[in-house]
Amino acid sequence: MSLAATPAPPYYAVIFTSVATGEDPAGYAAVAERMVALAAAMPGFLGIESVRGADGVGITVSYWASEEAIRAWYQHAEHREAQRLGRERWYGRFELRVSRVERAYGFDTSAR
Amino acid sequence: MSLAATPAPPYYAVIFTSVATGEDPAGYAAVAERMVALAAAMPGFLGIESVRGADGVGITVSYWASEEAIRAWYQHAEHREAQRLGRERWYGRFELRVSRVERAYGFDTSAR
Repeated sequence: MSLAATPAPPYYAVIFTSVATGEDPAGYAAVAERMVALAAAMPGFLGIESVRGADGVGITVSYWASEEAIRAWYQHAEHREAQRLGRERWYGRFELRVSRVERAYGFDTSAR
Repeated sequence: MSLAATPAPPYYAVIFTSVATGEDPAGYAAVAERMVALAAAMPGFLGIESVRGADGVGITVSYWASEEAIRAWYQHAEHREAQRLGRERWYGRFELRVSRVERAYGFDTSAR
């Protein structure tokens, strides 16, 4: 996974930071991969960036065209089930922040 | 580093995603650590979360009380010098997004 190619602001970013329990890594990996594919097929999806460190801390930022698009994604039945499993099994802690991107700036050496 | 304990919204999040070149890892680590300490001492700083994966992709989210606080941090002389080195040496690519956090929700098994 690399960086997301998002359009000019404004758009929305869902910042999901978590501490993994380390339980059931194969189940987690399979569902995480499925959720990325499912999110990407939702209306208003703009991109996703996700990193997990060796210490179990992870940050996933998904980008969306509107708050309505974010709501629809969080209410998707399969995503709801994944959220339930996340609370029950995979995450010891998480923070979810919905934000509106006001300004953006990029840098790419290959574009020099 | 763990998750940031931020106040109730609204507040601001600077989402910095990058691809590291892998050049000069010791110099990078030292400056990155110094920048976290320096940011934490700035007025309006609320917290920071940072993860870099084995593939070189990193996400750092810093939280701020206002856009003015973010501007002051980006104009800090020592931070400006670190930004210059980042473009010149440490990052092949990055995206910087300034966003306003509208809603937040947390989960902590230890608080059950």
